[in-house]
Amino acid sequence: MKKLILFLITLIPVLALAQESSVIQELDSKTEQYTKIAMQIWENPELGYLESESSALHQQTLSEAGFEVKAGVAGIPTAFVAEFGSGKPVIGIMAEFDALPGVSQKASPFREAVVEGGAGHACGHHLFGTASVAAGVAVKNWLDANGGQGTIRVYGTPAEEGGGGKVYMARAGLMDDVDVMLHWHPGSRNNAGANSSLANISTKFRFYGVASHAAAAPERGKSALDGVEAMNFMVNLMREHVPQETRMHYVITRGGEAPNVVPAFAESYHYVRHPDVKVVKEIFQKMVAAAEGAAKGTQTTMEYEIINGVYNLLPNETLARVMHKNLEIIGGVQYSEEDKKFAEELIKSYPDLSINPAEDAMKIDPFMVRETGTGGSTDVGDVSWLVPTAGLGVATWVPGTSAHTWQAVAAGGTPIGAKGMMVAAKTLALTALDVIKNPEIATKANEELNRRRGAGFNYEALVGDREAPLDYRK
Amino acid sequence: MKKLILFLITLIPVLALAQESSVIQELDSKTEQYTKIAMQIWENPELGYLESESSALHQQTLSEAGFEVKAGVAGIPTAFVAEFGSGKPVIGIMAEFDALPGVSQKASPFREAVVEGGAGHACGHHLFGTASVAAGVAVKNWLDANGGQGTIRVYGTPAEEGGGGKVYMARAGLMDDVDVMLHWHPGSRNNAGANSSLANISTKFRFYGVASHAAAAPERGKSALDGVEAMNFMVNLMREHVPQETRMHYVITRGGEAPNVVPAFAESYHYVRHPDVKVVKEIFQKMVAAAEGAAKGTQTTMEYEIINGVYNLLPNETLARVMHKNLEIIGGVQYSEEDKKFAEELIKSYPDLSINPAEDAMKIDPFMVRETGTGGSTDVGDVSWLVPTAGLGVATWVPGTSAHTWQAVAAGGTPIGAKGMMVAAKTLALTALDVIKNPEIATKANEELNRRRGAGFNYEALVGDREAPLDYRK
Amino acid sequence: MKKLILFLITLIPVLALAQESSVIQELDSKTEQYTKIAMQIWENPELGYLESESSALHQQTLSEAGFEVKAGVAGIPTAFVAEFGSGKPVIGIMAEFDALPGVSQKASPFREAVVEGGAGHACGHHLFGTASVAAGVAVKNWLDANGGQGTIRVYGTPAEEGGGGKVYMARAGLMDDVDVMLHWHPGSRNNAGANSSLANISTKFRFYGVASHAAAAPERGKSALDGVEAMNFMVNLMREHVPQETRMHYVITRGGEAPNVVPAFAESYHYVRHPDVKVVKEIFQKMVAAAEGAAKGTQTTMEYEIINGVYNLLPNETLARVMHKNLEIIGGVQYSEEDKKFAEELIKSYPDLSINPAEDAMKIDPFMVRETGTGGSTDVGDVSWLVPTAGLGVATWVPGTSAHTWQAVAAGGTPIGAKGMMVAAKTLALTALDVIKNPEIATKANEELNRRRGAGFNYEALVGDREAPLDYRK
Amino acid sequence: MKKLILFLITLIPVLALAQESSVIQELDSKTEQYTKIAMQIWENPELGYLESESSALHQQTLSEAGFEVKAGVAGIPTAFVAEFGSGKPVIGIMAEFDALPGVSQKASPFREAVVEGGAGHACGHHLFGTASVAAGVAVKNWLDANGGQGTIRVYGTPAEEGGGGKVYMARAGLMDDVDVMLHWHPGSRNNAGANSSLANISTKFRFYGVASHAAAAPERGKSALDGVEAMNFMVNLMREHVPQETRMHYVITRGGEAPNVVPAFAESYHYVRHPDVKVVKEIFQKMVAAAEGAAKGTQTTMEYEIINGVYNLLPNETLARVMHKNLEIIGGVQYSEEDKKFAEELIKSYPDLSINPAEDAMKIDPFMVRETGTGGSTDVGDVSWLVPTAGLGVATWVPGTSAHTWQAVAAGGTPIGAKGMMVAAKTLALTALDVIKNPEIATKANEELNRRRGAGFNYEALVGDREAPLDYRK
Repeated sequence: MKKLILFLITLIPVLALAQESSVIQELDSKTEQYTKIAMQIWENPELGYLESESSALHQQTLSEAGFEVKAGVAGIPTAFVAEFGSGKPVIGIMAEFDALPGVSQKASPFREAVVEGGAGHACGHHLFGTASVAAGVAVKNWLDANGGQGTIRVYGTPAEEGGGGKVYMARAGLMDDVDVMLHWHPGSRNNAGANSSLANISTKFRFYGVASHAAAAPERGKSALDGVEAMNFMVNLMREHVPQETRMHYVITRGGEAPNVVPAFAESYHYVRHPDVKVVKEIFQKMVAAAEGAAKGTQTTMEYEIINGVYNLLPNETLARVMHKNLEIIGGVQYSEEDKKFAEELIKSYPDLSINPAEDAMKIDPFMVRETGTGGSTDVGDVSWLVPTAGLGVATWVPGTSAHTWQAVAAGGTPIGAKGMMVAAKTLALTALDVIKNPEIATKANEELNRRRGAGFNYEALVGDREAPLDYRK
Repeated sequence: MKKLILFLITLIPVLALAQESSVIQELDSKTEQYTKIAMQIWENPELGYLESESSALHQQTLSEAGFEVKAGVAGIPTAFVAEFGSGKPVIGIMAEFDALPGVSQKASPFREAVVEGGAGHACGHHLFGTASVAAGVAVKNWLDANGGQGTIRVYGTPAEEGGGGKVYMARAGLMDDVDVMLHWHPGSRNNAGANSSLANISTKFRFYGVASHAAAAPERGKSALDGVEAMNFMVNLMREHVPQETRMHYVITRGGEAPNVVPAFAESYHYVRHPDVKVVKEIFQKMVAAAEGAAKGTQTTMEYEIINGVYNLLPNETLARVMHKNLEIIGGVQYSEEDKKFAEELIKSYPDLSINPAEDAMKIDPFMVRETGTGGSTDVGDVSWLVPTAGLGVATWVPGTSAHTWQAVAAGGTPIGAKGMMVAAKTLALTALDVIKNPEIATKANEELNRRRGAGFNYEALVGDREAPLDYRK
Repeated sequence: MKKLILFLITLIPVLALAQESSVIQELDSKTEQYTKIAMQIWENPELGYLESESSALHQQTLSEAGFEVKAGVAGIPTAFVAEFGSGKPVIGIMAEFDALPGVSQKASPFREAVVEGGAGHACGHHLFGTASVAAGVAVKNWLDANGGQGTIRVYGTPAEEGGGGKVYMARAGLMDDVDVMLHWHPGSRNNAGANSSLANISTKFRFYGVASHAAAAPERGKSALDGVEAMNFMVNLMREHVPQETRMHYVITRGGEAPNVVPAFAESYHYVRHPDVKVVKEIFQKMVAAAEGAAKGTQTTMEYEIINGVYNLLPNETLARVMHKNLEIIGGVQYSEEDKKFAEELIKSYPDLSINPAEDAMKIDPFMVRETGTGGSTDVGDVSWLVPTAGLGVATWVPGTSAHTWQAVAAGGTPIGAKGMMVAAKTLALTALDVIKNPEIATKANEELNRRRGAGFNYEALVGDREAPLDYRK
Repeated sequence: MKKLILFLITLIPVLALAQESSVIQELDSKTEQYTKIAMQIWENPELGYLESESSALHQQTLSEAGFEVKAGVAGIPTAFVAEFGSGKPVIGIMAEFDALPGVSQKASPFREAVVEGGAGHACGHHLFGTASVAAGVAVKNWLDANGGQGTIRVYGTPAEEGGGGKVYMARAGLMDDVDVMLHWHPGSRNNAGANSSLANISTKFRFYGVASHAAAAPERGKSALDGVEAMNFMVNLMREHVPQETRMHYVITRGGEAPNVVPAFAESYHYVRHPDVKVVKEIFQKMVAAAEGAAKGTQTTMEYEIINGVYNLLPNETLARVMHKNLEIIGGVQYSEEDKKFAEELIKSYPDLSINPAEDAMKIDPFMVRETGTGGSTDVGDVSWLVPTAGLGVATWVPGTSAHTWQAVAAGGTPIGAKGMMVAAKTLALTALDVIKNPEIATKANEELNRRRGAGFNYEALVGDREAPLDYRK
């Protein structure tokens, strides 16, 4: 592979010049248009599987640009696939657009909700979807203009935040003929390394007992909360006996109605994660055994529902190196004087950090391959086991900002977010053009995929055969 | 005391004849009026401390009847004291009027909500308040007509269902000069024994931790839910080491926000009950120690709020015997053909019980003294330690019905409820007249009170000096 | 029955005079002989099922007195049945003789072990067995002298302290033809009421896991101690949901070998008790379910062994009244000056109690029937469901002394113990004679037994079909 | 440093030749003598702090060779320091000699105890001490013969297995003037890398409650076992919130006396380990808080005793490279035909492993530096923070054998063990001579030590100021 890499590194800058001239030009010219779309979604944050207006807006943009759009795919009303062109390579770009509950925030450097307790784009998906659409359209226009061979698809992937939209789309076979999949994510740094993530299964365990007056006849009741607490007890004991990279964490989502009634229903919500999807499956079986044992031992009954299940992200160094090269061509996010003022004000909410936002937003992380995932999980994971996948992060937020915070919502509503979005759109588009022009990239990336996932790999969604949980945010 | 009792039993039936003629007549004539009031409250069920219209309606009735009404007493907007007459004896009658959440139901023998999830009078307090007002007015009219000596008061006591309205009114000294206190309760039997109940302290324990990403940095988090679970663990261990009549029960009211965040806040809601208020206090101290130990051991912080605290009901045999005698004079609840039809239909929802509703509703339980409380708790408990107190239960519900059920709401909206209400009003009124006419009753009842509560008794509300939790139902 | 009782009360004192003269005389004359036997056993305390010398000594005494002795019955080397006479009634007297571990003590009013950590007769069974033997011999001699009809049996019942000797003897049918069973117990009061006790099942739960280096490879281990702790957790939750008279208590008998090895074996020892044997069986099933659930939830395996299981003591008022009458005839324990000195010194170890030992040791508790057991359990329980059974307690210890204490061992080695023993021997003998002379007693007692145990009663030992745990004290 | 290393690698082989000739010759000639000493200790395995005969034997050997021996140092009867020579460099060699309980085994390839349940040298310390003594004597003889400058010391360090002898010797200042410390350990491979280990604090937590009859008066008892279980509960919750490299493991050493008594005493034994001693200290404080919280919440009292506490092993690459070079000069363990037969038989007890014992015993692991400890802990850790320390492992056991097994005891009693011992003695001696001849080694090694432990390092023993637990094996 090293030889290929060297070849690519030598070759690409030259090719890129031509691409840049047209594609970058086009995207620059449409900055205002895409910013308007992103802001429209930011102002109307829609939760997972409920993103009807956000999804429709992207579909309209793609449709008007000449894409053929199939909506409501994989049994999900807000999922879509938009396609242009024909033949190989087939390049996919994924677009997310769901918001998060409880983080409503104005585009202000101070904590100010638009609607107290309302939803907000705290993970920047209003930018995510828009940049992916923009990149798709730019690639389509390039194909049009240059008579290039290939197919460009934009996947509208709903409910990334716990709903696992991509899992159901992958399971439905919608990505089976894709040669290369691209994506990105808003963040507070610029990075296009070959990263991994944690595989994850998240499950609601529901215990059923028998209600009874807790003072008059406790001996006639069977407490569902006893079931929940006994399961948790055994899960906590289990922590000693799982590989140390495992993460298990839970909340109690229903803990009984009123103290004077023995709880007839109680529910907990458990995650299990590990860098290796096989280990996650094994530990999940033990977690289920803990739940079953708890039910048996507390005279209750139990049923569980897998809410979400995602694979770890399989890094693809071949593709990631191309993406990284393009990110370096495009560069980071450049602040105006106004952006700087906003950022200086906002970072006062991080008194412990020493940050120079305008400088840091320009930096690009050196290229790295991280084989072992840490931190979070994403439904991009499943896709990455089916198709060579590469992504980038762009500093759409003021450096120092964490995901899911009001600061992320705030910056996402300012020109900082919009600029970051255009960096992403350009990098994605350039990477797609590289793949179109150099068939060897897709070949090598697929060879790497096969090597990484091992012989005899057979994709089985961790969610089993359940339907997408369309009401998980209702 | 035996001599007195014999004396009373011999004496009273004769006296009662005269009283009956006027008081019963009056109450019979106003059945329609009081039924209308009760139904108005039934149709507009108001939760604890939010009973502004229900309270206002009773105040209006009493005011128009000539009572002097003081509203907003004890710092509670919906609490009131209505008074008529002067001098000794001072007789109080308590009136409750709060509804319960989540049990909205039509006056139908089938499960049919008026408003799904809405409130309903599942404990019959719409009848409770109205009968007490009716009795008060009847006694007032008797005093007027007969030039009798004495003071009659109706106490409007809000939020019996977990809000402890009477506790704050007792603590404010509003009952200090009362000689005898009367009350009643809707139910499915007719009973005027000298009963007790469990003392109770109910408390919310709130734990505070440090949020952190549960997969990326669990070691930087401190889980408030750990605090809740550790406290519960120790409370469950404690069960072995408390007197067997103790009842401890809890629910988890907040168990974390989302599984992927170490919970920064969690809350449980604990009750501790025992027939003896002193034991409740002791065990409560241990429960607090368990909470403190849990906080220490899980690196969290804890604070608790006593939501409610009530004494056990101190039986008063002297007064209870008078009440029982009057209940026997008045008799149980007589069903019409239509009532029977309704009841026959409704009891199909109790397939395991063999009931003859029309017969059972007429029966009156034999007199008994129960020194040791079992089952539930009531804020009448506090009053009973300050004033000799007696109450009765009347079959305002179809026999077989439990409190807090839709069946209780349903029957309370039919003539069955209204008839039971009038039985209560008459019995209360006759008992008040007995006390007015026989000063020895109050004297003996107070002697019994002093004997039962022991030397050196000093009332201290279990809620301490907290204000009434006016927002506990908001 | 009342009539019978009156009849007996009237009749018996007259009859008793004759009996007293011979039987009491004989026992008085042998005080020294029996005291010597008791002291021989006291000086050589033997634990449950290991009482070979104690048992042999009693067998020898009975054999020499003319009894036919069958040893090694019910598969227990130290169990025996000694019989004299023929025909009805068959009267049994039970004799216990096992000691307790860890309470070695001299006959001194101060804490002084004979052998540090050694065994001692802290439950007075050296007196128990000897008095029963003495009573048996006295009855035999009376039958001989008076040509009376009937069979007298002494049952040598080993291992009362947790070994349940009588259960295996009862299960083996050794008591099936007995008409009336008598027993007694050393204590600190004189009492012959109709008492009950708690039914009990005691069980060892053994969990098996997989050992592994706890620091190097904890994820390869499965902790048996996790199983024990998870079971205990669920048992503690269960406390809320059992009838309040239930008692559940446990210790952890094996909690892992060394902290640096994941425990491959762990064991807990649980008791469950309740006044009603049926309830004990039900709760035991839930306890087993808790153990099974714990094993399932902790990836371990579990097996359990019922160590002991005894019925509640079924009171027999008919028989108890006869016993009580005889105890009153005999009277309590009379102290010499030396006894008083010993007692005065010993009670200094009970600084909180106000006792007059010499007076209290003479008192006899008034007769009472206690239907519901509290406190302890005894293997006499099983016998009492098969044969009308009555027992008495005698103040062989200084009043204020609890069973299983060094003070009990100490007093049992002085003349106080010996005097109490003779009170028991005489009361048992007189009661046996009453039964021989008044056939109606056995008839009525058996009628009461049948009534109390209900129709269709079928004895099933709680220990199932296990053999006696002959090595439980090794 | 690299320059030095290159210099050494070039230089040493030449120097070594001369050393080899004399030192190796001498040690070869004394193989029989040292084997006899080792076997004498193997046949009389003595537990930690009780190694009076083993220690005396080593002292005698050293004394007879001309060392000055100070016994009973650091308040430990079996600890000693033996010294020869004067001036710089001061070179220490550590000698362990304690055995382990419960692993008695013959020198047989099958499981055969000498004394069932007896002690055995399952960690090979009989070889450890003897080789260190042999190396010390060889160095002394070389100094004598060559008039060399320097001091050689042999440290007799008792109770490595959980008793932490070296900690008390380090704390007493006995190693303060040492320039370089050498040690080794029996094992199943040959390795002289620069390794680390886990820091560790091991503690007994003792809870005290109030005993009471568990059936008659459980409410008067306070269960010490409740304290233990509550602490464990919180420790298990804590697992989620410690760095993932942490290891916490425990056993319950006392879980109550008898089920029918509320436990007045209970004890658990907890380890906490981490590669970083600072982290261990922090988590230990939280563990103590869990114990304190458990005591508070269960109405018990608690005290704890730190049984052992050791630092992580600080690698010293400078010194380790010298040791590794010498191990390569000496080579691994060479099997005779008889050794092969023994080994072939013994490895049948490892059916899952594929091993060629005779080949593997000859191999030497490539040199590596492991900065982060895993697996176990050792009291060499403390020494390594005070003095540059290097050690080696030698295949004294049949490859595939784990420490603390009967297979380790067995091989240690055969010529295989003795051969391994001589490999260690030679390697240690050569390394000491290198240090004597090349002062730069000690200088560089001390520079590395200073760099690794950081500025301002101040040694504080984790055991605090407690005395050595001389009775921990009694």
